[in-house]
Amino acid sequence: MKLSFDKSSLMNGINIVLKAVPSKTTMPILECILLDATDESIKLTANDMEMAIETRIEGNILEKGKVAIDAKLFSEIIRKLPDSEIVIEEENENIRISCEKTNFKISGRRGDDFVGMPSVETNQYICVSQFTLKEIIRQTIFSIAPNENNKLMTGELFEIQDDKLKVVSLDGHRISIRNVELKDHYENRKVIVPGKTLIEISRILSGDAEKEVYIFFSKNHILFEFDQTVVLSRLIEGEFFKIDQMISSDFETKITVNKKELLESIERSVLLVRESDKKPIIINIQNNNMELSLHSLIGSMREDILGHHSGKDLMIGFNPKFLIDALRVIDDEEVTIYMMNSKAPCFIRDNEGRYIYLILPVNFIANR
Amino acid sequence: MKLSFDKSSLMNGINIVLKAVPSKTTMPILECILLDATDESIKLTANDMEMAIETRIEGNILEKGKVAIDAKLFSEIIRKLPDSEIVIEEENENIRISCEKTNFKISGRRGDDFVGMPSVETNQYICVSQFTLKEIIRQTIFSIAPNENNKLMTGELFEIQDDKLKVVSLDGHRISIRNVELKDHYENRKVIVPGKTLIEISRILSGDAEKEVYIFFSKNHILFEFDQTVVLSRLIEGEFFKIDQMISSDFETKITVNKKELLESIERSVLLVRESDKKPIIINIQNNNMELSLHSLIGSMREDILGHHSGKDLMIGFNPKFLIDALRVIDDEEVTIYMMNSKAPCFIRDNEGRYIYLILPVNFIANR
Repeated sequence: MKLSFDKSSLMNGINIVLKAVPSKTTMPILECILLDATDESIKLTANDMEMAIETRIEGNILEKGKVAIDAKLFSEIIRKLPDSEIVIEEENENIRISCEKTNFKISGRRGDDFVGMPSVETNQYICVSQFTLKEIIRQTIFSIAPNENNKLMTGELFEIQDDKLKVVSLDGHRISIRNVELKDHYENRKVIVPGKTLIEISRILSGDAEKEVYIFFSKNHILFEFDQTVVLSRLIEGEFFKIDQMISSDFETKITVNKKELLESIERSVLLVRESDKKPIIINIQNNNMELSLHSLIGSMREDILGHHSGKDLMIGFNPKFLIDALRVIDDEEVTIYMMNSKAPCFIRDNEGRYIYLILPVNFIANR
Repeated sequence: MKLSFDKSSLMNGINIVLKAVPSKTTMPILECILLDATDESIKLTANDMEMAIETRIEGNILEKGKVAIDAKLFSEIIRKLPDSEIVIEEENENIRISCEKTNFKISGRRGDDFVGMPSVETNQYICVSQFTLKEIIRQTIFSIAPNENNKLMTGELFEIQDDKLKVVSLDGHRISIRNVELKDHYENRKVIVPGKTLIEISRILSGDAEKEVYIFFSKNHILFEFDQTVVLSRLIEGEFFKIDQMISSDFETKITVNKKELLESIERSVLLVRESDKKPIIINIQNNNMELSLHSLIGSMREDILGHHSGKDLMIGFNPKFLIDALRVIDDEEVTIYMMNSKAPCFIRDNEGRYIYLILPVNFIANR
């Protein structure tokens, strides 16, 4: 095999597929990137057996072939080479990388030993912009469950219904919901996508509003296709939680406040919270005023925020982290919070139905 | 006590004295910053018993007093407050911090319990620019010894002789020497300054060439005074190594090469070096060419760099890290390396006597 590339196109390709190289594995071949130039194009592939990424890169095929190269070493060497033409030659898994006056010789592995991207028959797809997909992942991913105790909670629901895409994540204490209007007509579908896949995809996506992502579905897989890249991931099997019955539009208290003011105030309050001494933030709503307070072993904090309040007065306590997570991904200048009483969940939602963040309160009287 | 400040001046002051707050200590009071407004000015002080930093900050004294405040909590709270006026009140070690509509209440400690800056009688000083001091620290600090096996090697020699300041560090494998012309006449003096002190000072120094640092000496201490800040540190006791007899200007081989080319080539070579498999970089000088090569279990690397060579041909091996450290802090476009033979140290030095970097070679034949 003999190939030549611009450093930048090779480096970009490596950075994309690196996202599917497992950090720990019992199969050393998975620590490799497959460099495949057996056809007319040059492809890089990595696969951690849950997710596989393949990307095509620009370059010249001087001699066809394929080889698997240790991903970490390969990426480090390419990164440190001069910004110039890079030539990669391979014979019997001996790899020579040359660039200007530099020559590296390293060992590779047989390309045929690499577990490539499985071929999957897809029967349906949707199309959204890279910007939209990157944003909805950012706006929901924080409320997946951090551990595997409940496998379903480690993924996100992607539900296509009536030409809308609804993305949902939940961890038992809160629910995040984002809705996006699709531009075309698509069949209804519900799948659960692993959170890890979404995190890695959002790192690869450029976030360009003009560029599209095609999302294909099969029985057990989801496939994302964008730019020169394909990401294939297993789906999580099972039936997602019935969230519709948890969502209510009733409320007894409603308050609208400046989002930045509220977020910054809660961010300050957590300075008084230590791992060993979790304390809720207490919100007291009265006379168009939201008083926030937090008392811990370290000290106390109190702050007033003016707002537009309707309905009953209310005092309610929350885990401050959950409010922070939701407020950080809401890009509106003002947020409206709807509450029933101090024991029912609050809803942060907009009028257009783009987002709903449900957060369970905590029993602050016991905690005070 | 009642004081008011602009957030920015308080924050700047805290960031400066934080450098002397110990990360681990058996004396909880040392984890505090002393806020002292018993005189006409407001001072912040921190002290880890090796080094103390005191800085004066702008602010209004509405009621005199002093109190010690947990450094980490204090800095976090101030950082998160709005960019506005901050009022700090204290009564019986109960501290109230207010800013706009935010109020924090935390506990402090008695100011009198704080171990303040010792008063030291100085008998001599020099003056250099902040830029110069920051630079010479950066250019020498990497070759102090990382552990305390030899206390003298954890510090740097500051030697004033004939109106020059010479700064020296060494770790048994290499020596770094920087010389600076002083602008005034000063008495000769030799002290050993703890490396830790120099690292923290260089983080505080603005690096402004127009601003000065006064460096005062006492029998056991060194005191740096600049801007509104005073840093006092113990000296390391003992007699520094006699380095003059290690420095030679004889050579059999001399080569001048582009610094950036050489540095980048060696930086690439270390990609093949693993903790468990330390391999030298081998430099082969012949016909105005410097061939660099490194062979390890991972692979091999070879590169040619053109240079101006005089004297004998030579093959010599080095720990690549030592060459990288020295080359990174040399700001010249070209560097000249002087060598005797494959077993004697090499010298990287300029013609003006501003710097000398001595590096011992390694026995590469055994390593090959």
